[in-house]
Amino acid sequence: MNAAGRPEKLVVVGAGSWGTTFAKVLADSALERGVPEPEIVIWARRPEIAESITWEHRNEDYLPEIALPECLTATTDLAAAVSGAGLVVLAIPAQEVRKHLPAIRAHLGPAAVVLSLIKGLERGTDARMSELCAEELDLPAERFAVVSGPNLALEIARGEPTATVVASTDPAAAEWIATRTAGPYFRPYTNTDVTGVEICGVVKNVIALAVGICDGLGFGDNSKASVITRGLAETTRLAESLGGQAETLAGLAGLGDLVATCASPLSRNRTAGRYLGQGLSVEEATARLKQTAEGMKSVSAVVDLSRRHGVEMPISEAMNAVIAGSLDVDTLSGLLLSRDLKSEGRT
Amino acid sequence: MNAAGRPEKLVVVGAGSWGTTFAKVLADSALERGVPEPEIVIWARRPEIAESITWEHRNEDYLPEIALPECLTATTDLAAAVSGAGLVVLAIPAQEVRKHLPAIRAHLGPAAVVLSLIKGLERGTDARMSELCAEELDLPAERFAVVSGPNLALEIARGEPTATVVASTDPAAAEWIATRTAGPYFRPYTNTDVTGVEICGVVKNVIALAVGICDGLGFGDNSKASVITRGLAETTRLAESLGGQAETLAGLAGLGDLVATCASPLSRNRTAGRYLGQGLSVEEATARLKQTAEGMKSVSAVVDLSRRHGVEMPISEAMNAVIAGSLDVDTLSGLLLSRDLKSEGRT
Repeated sequence: MNAAGRPEKLVVVGAGSWGTTFAKVLADSALERGVPEPEIVIWARRPEIAESITWEHRNEDYLPEIALPECLTATTDLAAAVSGAGLVVLAIPAQEVRKHLPAIRAHLGPAAVVLSLIKGLERGTDARMSELCAEELDLPAERFAVVSGPNLALEIARGEPTATVVASTDPAAAEWIATRTAGPYFRPYTNTDVTGVEICGVVKNVIALAVGICDGLGFGDNSKASVITRGLAETTRLAESLGGQAETLAGLAGLGDLVATCASPLSRNRTAGRYLGQGLSVEEATARLKQTAEGMKSVSAVVDLSRRHGVEMPISEAMNAVIAGSLDVDTLSGLLLSRDLKSEGRT
Repeated sequence: MNAAGRPEKLVVVGAGSWGTTFAKVLADSALERGVPEPEIVIWARRPEIAESITWEHRNEDYLPEIALPECLTATTDLAAAVSGAGLVVLAIPAQEVRKHLPAIRAHLGPAAVVLSLIKGLERGTDARMSELCAEELDLPAERFAVVSGPNLALEIARGEPTATVVASTDPAAAEWIATRTAGPYFRPYTNTDVTGVEICGVVKNVIALAVGICDGLGFGDNSKASVITRGLAETTRLAESLGGQAETLAGLAGLGDLVATCASPLSRNRTAGRYLGQGLSVEEATARLKQTAEGMKSVSAVVDLSRRHGVEMPISEAMNAVIAGSLDVDTLSGLLLSRDLKSEGRT
């Protein structure tokens, strides 16, 4: 327990590469702060992964080269994991969140904060994770937070220096999380613009698909930089229309994350786009990826949302058409730099 | 002659990779528009380069793999080159501009527009190229323009699709230039924010040095994305303090150019930084580069300018100290992501 009446047990729901890495960040932060017996638990869907994390300190499927801290344990029992936790971190695909929320709600402590690492929207409802949690967990806004930034999981898992943004409408909640993540290689900065940070993360994956397609088509860095620039402009328009702040988009969670994703061969969404640019079908590209490419799942919801708010998002519209199969990438290549995609300026 | 009384002869002063490529852009645009006998001339300092461009349609030193249009000619006679030209494009190192301006002034036509491709400040005076031309050519602002964007020369020379920004306080002058550069692979967008575009180009090269140092030190994409994000934030602060517009910085000339430069192995400034990060001295790094790394030359002027205007530019300050030899790159590596460099937000 602490001043906020919030237990020090920390739980990460999801054992993919980012969830596992984030649990390592929490553990390394606790160790650096000299917490005597840190209680940091990962919920994994598959028993073999849970056992491997607990007993071998490895996640062979998603972070094979990384030795995990010995204080990390894992379980497949979601109720046991969430019970008594002060922080519940969501690190599962956006389309699977709703089905797990009832079990989380049943065991969520009264002071616990829910932190989303998820960069997607729910299809059908277009809901952001903050909206989904408010609705399904009956969670007040001040107990919800989101972490986003230039955070390629493998680089962080290797201990390379990384900055990020922790956003919550309650600055004290953001600060509480920042303290529990700050460590030798991880530097969180706090912010209150939850909507802006969520939109950054969601649309980034869509723009990364477009940049990946440019790669697959053999375009150079000039073309890709133009797509990144226009992509951030349309992301900013959407975020502002939903109440987010332009400064957030220009910061680590917006520009920073977009640039890291689009520069890195580690990005799943960029890789998915590259496969499409090389001529694979959506089904073939999906089959070749081991994990979910959130951009492919969320793009239809992004486009729905933008249309409902009257925001022009030509790159997202083009990606949606590609994923839906109504636009082929060779036609797209002419569109990506054309005047039809508009240009400078944000109106 | 045309409506503005401006001759159609177009001259590029400087035969480096960007100057030569830009002359090719002008020639390809003229050919696409069906101009009967385009008169496009490059001024080169060295006779062997001028002869090779005119007779062999090659620039062996700076663009060896590219076949240049046959209508391009080159000369070492600056007076002859500038005489009768409607457009004089400056594509020489920033520190060499002042010494050439008297010869240009003596032969500059009364309606000619001067267009700067230069991404540097003059050391000692901290002058931007617009200021230098106004002073030394007695040139009214409406006859000055600047081109900047995600424009890696080699990609453009290869005919890969590229967008750019043409800025002049006179929209008609910008439009006149846009028409003469637009072509099958080059798309100019006009703007009136000359100051913003100039500052984008200048500081970009300084930030590229910092990103290069990260490379040389073995940092990953998370770290580099943070430096790019903070770098654009400090560039924006400087531009705004000089009357530039934040929108310009978020566009192709700002974000676009910075991202292209920092992504590309073709960037001289990033390469210079990488050499420094690997432990070479400033002298060794300079000797290994064939052309000028403007960032190393201009950084002291950038820092002077920012201090005179009370703008905090921690990355530029750090680069200045590295170039001056008062900060070594290993100390720098700790600073680049530290809270001492400040973070989110633009105040």
